[in-house]
Amino acid sequence: MSILVVGSVAYDTVETAREKRERQLGGSASFFSIATLGRGDVRCVGVVGDDFLQSDLDLLANHGADISGIQRMPGKSFHWSGRYHEDMIERDTLATELGVFADFQPEIPEDWKKSDYLFLANIHPALQLHVLETMTAPKLVALDTMNLWIENTPEDLAAVLAKVDVLLVNDSEARLLTGKRSLAHAAEAIRAMGPQLVIVKKGEHGALFFGRESVLSVPAIILDDVIDPTGAGDCFAGGFMRSLAESAATRDSNDGIFRKAMLDGTVTASFCPEGFNVEGLLKITDQSYNERLATLKGMMVP
Amino acid sequence: MSILVVGSVAYDTVETAREKRERQLGGSASFFSIATLGRGDVRCVGVVGDDFLQSDLDLLANHGADISGIQRMPGKSFHWSGRYHEDMIERDTLATELGVFADFQPEIPEDWKKSDYLFLANIHPALQLHVLETMTAPKLVALDTMNLWIENTPEDLAAVLAKVDVLLVNDSEARLLTGKRSLAHAAEAIRAMGPQLVIVKKGEHGALFFGRESVLSVPAIILDDVIDPTGAGDCFAGGFMRSLAESAATRDSNDGIFRKAMLDGTVTASFCPEGFNVEGLLKITDQSYNERLATLKGMMVP
Repeated sequence: MSILVVGSVAYDTVETAREKRERQLGGSASFFSIATLGRGDVRCVGVVGDDFLQSDLDLLANHGADISGIQRMPGKSFHWSGRYHEDMIERDTLATELGVFADFQPEIPEDWKKSDYLFLANIHPALQLHVLETMTAPKLVALDTMNLWIENTPEDLAAVLAKVDVLLVNDSEARLLTGKRSLAHAAEAIRAMGPQLVIVKKGEHGALFFGRESVLSVPAIILDDVIDPTGAGDCFAGGFMRSLAESAATRDSNDGIFRKAMLDGTVTASFCPEGFNVEGLLKITDQSYNERLATLKGMMVP
Repeated sequence: MSILVVGSVAYDTVETAREKRERQLGGSASFFSIATLGRGDVRCVGVVGDDFLQSDLDLLANHGADISGIQRMPGKSFHWSGRYHEDMIERDTLATELGVFADFQPEIPEDWKKSDYLFLANIHPALQLHVLETMTAPKLVALDTMNLWIENTPEDLAAVLAKVDVLLVNDSEARLLTGKRSLAHAAEAIRAMGPQLVIVKKGEHGALFFGRESVLSVPAIILDDVIDPTGAGDCFAGGFMRSLAESAATRDSNDGIFRKAMLDGTVTASFCPEGFNVEGLLKITDQSYNERLATLKGMMVP
């Protein structure tokens, strides 16, 4: 099964109370790709500038991502800088230098248009729609977005939402998008916009899945220490889509398949905050993964 | 099985974006008592002023609470006024008039000292300790507290914590009490203070149970509408203790008994925000209760 991800490949400068790390590998497509754990055929579409280190692209490739869809353009790579508050949840964006990402025009290699699964990471919804319309017949399309597009380009967002199967947003985005305070009502309203499956991410409080026949609440794994939560949402998406690909899911699969994928998303995402940038993810082993999955199930059984 | 609760019996004036309700029946012992649903033998110790309506006391009695431990003193009843923000979570306290509650000296009727279960609702920890030491041999003692006591009377709080079995706090209180950001570490630190069982309430994000052998995360029921969340934490405690009493739990029971009680606490608390003051609770029927319990389990099964 093949998974196509279109998103950012970037550098992040992250400051916490303990440490500051400059220009680390980041971006939604990077976190997503590594979170698929080299299983399946993961294809990465993005853009980097001429300052992007070949070693960082190699790291993605060495973890199973096909990076031949990452264009290199003259100019600077996308660079985000932020500082986390003491609670390691709130953060202030200190700088967003879009660089070559400002003019990103995703180009999907011809033989990737038949990819089984498509994850449209958080980029301009018009670009998301463009990519989606390029595809032949994906089994399932999932989309992430953010307050910027909800507030500034609602029509573009509506156009792409009408054509996707799964929306992944956080709770404040779900409320902003729908104007509904109750997440049950928000999920209903989102379903009326297109996506029949809605995932509401709540960070340390876990995630909710609103399926066709059921609702699932998955808690987050309780971590001993949070080093850097940047990218956890994209890691969730990577684990979720990997799980769907392994189950050969389609948009019409029963809720059980998606509920299982919610657990895989949660377990995968739990490793992310345990290290700076992708370091936490790189520590995943079969054993540590399965232990966390067992822990998670133990926290859930009523 | 008998349950003794010691706490406030009060009036609340609650203002939301939609409505303002003045001097409604409130207080931790009131919510707790009604949340026990008239099952078992629930004994209520508190104090009210001469302004307290007999009809409000009757309401408690009619829902199964023995109110003979509620003293009536000359003066005003405890009266809390608050205004909820648009999100129905954050709130501002507008006034706290302690009235006769300022000099509350809980007096436990002689034959109530042998009660099976004791719930020490949120009052001064020195009073909590006094009550606890009055008891003969309760099967289990649970305690609620708040930031006021954590910050201002840490020694009194430590003295009573050393003698209780279950601590119920919210996540910010757990962190304040222990200085630990990770709830896993906070629970460990609380265990070292005395209570071997720790419940961390997280409002709309549910609750965590840290047991001897397991951790359980229970989501909150997703509500269509939140009218007034005041008292939901005490309703949780009431449902939790009722469940323990029905299971004839002791402090040494296995985690399964407590995990079940977490579900009962959650289901019970879910009715509270659906009406002003105790109105939501009063709508509970066997059918609506069991439907919510099934919904909750459906949200949890991994």
